[in-house]
Amino acid sequence: MQLLKDKIRTDAKIIEDRIIQVDNFLNHQLDITLFNEIGKEFKRRFSNKEVTKIVTVETSGIAIACIAAQYFNYVPVVFAKKHAGINMNPDVYEAKVYSYTKNQEYTIKISKEFLSPNDKILMIDDFLASGSALMGLVSLISQSGAEISGAGIVIEKTFQEGRKLIQQNGIQLESLAIIDSIRDGQVIFK
Amino acid sequence: MQLLKDKIRTDAKIIEDRIIQVDNFLNHQLDITLFNEIGKEFKRRFSNKEVTKIVTVETSGIAIACIAAQYFNYVPVVFAKKHAGINMNPDVYEAKVYSYTKNQEYTIKISKEFLSPNDKILMIDDFLASGSALMGLVSLISQSGAEISGAGIVIEKTFQEGRKLIQQNGIQLESLAIIDSIRDGQVIFK
Repeated sequence: MQLLKDKIRTDAKIIEDRIIQVDNFLNHQLDITLFNEIGKEFKRRFSNKEVTKIVTVETSGIAIACIAAQYFNYVPVVFAKKHAGINMNPDVYEAKVYSYTKNQEYTIKISKEFLSPNDKILMIDDFLASGSALMGLVSLISQSGAEISGAGIVIEKTFQEGRKLIQQNGIQLESLAIIDSIRDGQVIFK
Repeated sequence: MQLLKDKIRTDAKIIEDRIIQVDNFLNHQLDITLFNEIGKEFKRRFSNKEVTKIVTVETSGIAIACIAAQYFNYVPVVFAKKHAGINMNPDVYEAKVYSYTKNQEYTIKISKEFLSPNDKILMIDDFLASGSALMGLVSLISQSGAEISGAGIVIEKTFQEGRKLIQQNGIQLESLAIIDSIRDGQVIFK
């Protein structure tokens, strides 16, 4: 997706040739016009799939998933919680996830009432790198018996192992910008 | 807003005549059609105000703010972070916030680069009760020198002191469903 690649080239901050910080449009300040283009592009790539619900992970996936849902016939969005409040229904599906950017292990949770065996789920997230968060979602959805229609990712770092893990599970994976490597502060797309 | 009140009557779970749990459409599973109606209603109520940016707090405010931004000429959304990653710019505005539902004090942060004295900010959040989160946002925005155009709230519990705190600061406060009290498991709207 050219618009997104251009945005990464002009606005992303590269830290130690390893980290792509996109707080300017994706992770802290959110570019709603760009998110609409991202939503349209996900719809185009998954036009062959039935989607009854979009599932994502707290926090950065939520905004993208909600805007995208408008292009999938306004299906509900469910986000897996990392920081459950005391009011959350205790009857949940759980999975362990490791966050490299926060250097911390989380348990992510979705209330059982919001996933059913009749659901066909599109997973959406901002980044795919190690694949830990996305594999956590795969686990939650599989526990519920729902079907996975695919995984839509905004930025994939293909030099980490996430893609392999997802594809080993037979899941259609669509990443809108695939980063092959970072050299001398420059992003090299696949 | 009648549609929202109806949704609360049919779908909210009342816990101990004190807590309104709306995980079914607002805080865990997200009703994107309803969020669009909420966005339109905020636009109607703040049609007299200039808005260059929408600011909210992680996590539950993000989805509402992003859908609403589409009705405010697609202005950017900035969310205050509760759980900053290691990649976040350290040059931030900070404020302390107390969460009753998590029984915990947080520091919320916004990078200085995303608020400027030229901004006219609409604050949006899911709940107003004690007003702690919203007053935290008021503090962050005031530190930046930006102007506050108003505060848009989905559900206000008017039996707590939030409204008074916001209005003492001369801020236009618009809540789409105002709950006067909860008795015998029934919500009584103002």
